[in-house]
Amino acid sequence: MVEQIIKLIAESQIAILCSVDENGYPCAKAMLAPRRVNGMREVWFSTNTSSQSVERYRNCNKASIYFYNATTFQGVMLRGTIEILEDAQTKEELWQDGDELYYPNGITDPDYCVLHFTADNARYYADFCSTEIKL
Amino acid sequence: MVEQIIKLIAESQIAILCSVDENGYPCAKAMLAPRRVNGMREVWFSTNTSSQSVERYRNCNKASIYFYNATTFQGVMLRGTIEILEDAQTKEELWQDGDELYYPNGITDPDYCVLHFTADNARYYADFCSTEIKL
Repeated sequence: MVEQIIKLIAESQIAILCSVDENGYPCAKAMLAPRRVNGMREVWFSTNTSSQSVERYRNCNKASIYFYNATTFQGVMLRGTIEILEDAQTKEELWQDGDELYYPNGITDPDYCVLHFTADNARYYADFCSTEIKL
Repeated sequence: MVEQIIKLIAESQIAILCSVDENGYPCAKAMLAPRRVNGMREVWFSTNTSSQSVERYRNCNKASIYFYNATTFQGVMLRGTIEILEDAQTKEELWQDGDELYYPNGITDPDYCVLHFTADNARYYADFCSTEIKL
């Protein structure tokens, strides 16, 4: 099952990143595929420091990431916490060609940061069944 | 813009339904297209009464529904509350051929219920810009 989940994550072009807003409402946002993944345990995205998501994670670091395949009816939700990384080394490691479109001032652009997600548990849905997985 | 959003919702085959769990973590779940939509204001889904989502909405009715198009980079998040409907009339109105697959006992199956979502506000993303909309 872990292999199936890792394959699902690797093949997803879009991830749904969820947060909780200041009034306690759940929020969702489509993100391009993560910049880096460590099994089911850690996920890294690049994003704008000025975005609402970053503001929300500074207030409440609880998060989930949802990957799904609408054709095979498989989905996995990773649940855990987000850390906002703004150190030079991480920003350089995660930078990709073309990122200037989002961060015109390049790698040191203060509006460029990295979201580092660490999962505590996962819920996998396939074949009409859900399974909880402790990580 | 409202027309664009209504078109986005109508063309989405999948909706991402979000809730907050008992520990305050955001949760996401892919749903087949809604059973009924009233503009951007109301959305109805059918679901299993025994599902985790229903249990969560009984504890906390704050919800969001996210529709997006990965090709055009458009997305809309509707934020509001969920009401769980189990009355015979609503269940009959929302029933569709083929639902026996999910609810073997038919329209009166106690494991079949309707989620009625009412939006308070929306956030629309298109052309790299986000817009807040009060409803």
